Amino acid sequence: MAQQERAVRTRRAILEAAGHVFDAHGYEAATIAQILERAGVTRGALYFHFSSKEDLARGVLAEAVTTEGLLPQRFKLQELVDASLLLAHRLPREPLLRASMRLSVDQRARAMFGTKWPDWIAVAERLLTEAEHNGETLPHVSPADTARLLVAAWTGVQLVAEAVPRDEELVDEITRLYRLTLPNIAVPGVMASLDVAPDRPLRLGTSS
Amino acid sequence: MAQQERAVRTRRAILEAAGHVFDAHGYEAATIAQILERAGVTRGALYFHFSSKEDLARGVLAEAVTTEGLLPQRFKLQELVDASLLLAHRLPREPLLRASMRLSVDQRARAMFGTKWPDWIAVAERLLTEAEHNGETLPHVSPADTARLLVAAWTGVQLVAEAVPRDEELVDEITRLYRLTLPNIAVPGVMASLDVAPDRPLRLGTSS
Repeated sequence: MAQQERAVRTRRAILEAAGHVFDAHGYEAATIAQILERAGVTRGALYFHFSSKEDLARGVLAEAVTTEGLLPQRFKLQELVDASLLLAHRLPREPLLRASMRLSVDQRARAMFGTKWPDWIAVAERLLTEAEHNGETLPHVSPADTARLLVAAWTGVQLVAEAVPRDEELVDEITRLYRLTLPNIAVPGVMASLDVAPDRPLRLGTSS
Repeated sequence: MAQQERAVRTRRAILEAAGHVFDAHGYEAATIAQILERAGVTRGALYFHFSSKEDLARGVLAEAVTTEGLLPQRFKLQELVDASLLLAHRLPREPLLRASMRLSVDQRARAMFGTKWPDWIAVAERLLTEAEHNGETLPHVSPADTARLLVAAWTGVQLVAEAVPRDEELVDEITRLYRLTLPNIAVPGVMASLDVAPDRPLRLGTSS
């Protein structure tokens, strides 16, 4: 394996270990020693990539906003739904994502690093603005306000799902959030074509 | 002032001070010394009412779920909206409420004390079930699922409002949440009668 490729993998392994430790213990209580043990790398390797716990947290947060795995769709509202459902599908499976969410919610970490919410809101607002231009949205819908509400509601659903678990997946709850809100966002003809089923993320290899 | 009344006031002053300190510093970093200083009471007085910081946190959380200030309304959905808007109106004004929210969101505090979300969800579910019996809700609405979604979304809106502030009040954002969701919950005739305006909490002295 080339030296550069090895460095990329090591960096990723450290970030995933940091994500796991932040997720399990919270930012405040997490230690570099725990991250080292989890990553199985030397202290020297860790400090080659990250100068401090703060730097690790920034690295974790930087991984959060991704539209990886998303394909263009017939309707921009479908792309918005896809991004939301895919994130809900991935979050319980990926400690790195979960940690970035936790850092956003944690009062002290947030004060130090800010949050990724403005980035998610920007992604949603862009898609809703395009949807509006394409005539997909009802006339009262404000892309900026709706983007903010949907990102906020998504976050709340994730928090409550974690704190008061039910026998179902996060993606099932996010599907219900969209079934509650979309009929008041999409024009009926578009609404009828949108796929908000919980297994949508598993079918995302193909454009609809 | 009678001794008992004085004790009630002292207990309240300590809880409000604890709320303020938990809100400002988070549960983990908060100290009894800060709470004593803020409350302006003796250590003896504090320990007469609360045995520990944990006990104070439990006291703060116990204050969170209240339907104080709410009056019966023509529609149960209006009572649900009133509870949500009133909480949004009070939260920025009352450190005790804000602290109870923060303790619910804080990962470590939550592990120790649980959260008040199940209580809020139960309040919302009861109102939605009554609304359903009265024919106020659309046929697809499940009171349990909808209660959970609305409480979760409310929480997310509050968190994002705090982390990414805009030049408006929380109650303005909660009004938008209801304008987004209620048309897919209430039957049209009821929807047209519901008051979800942000100044609704100021008018709650009177039944509609």
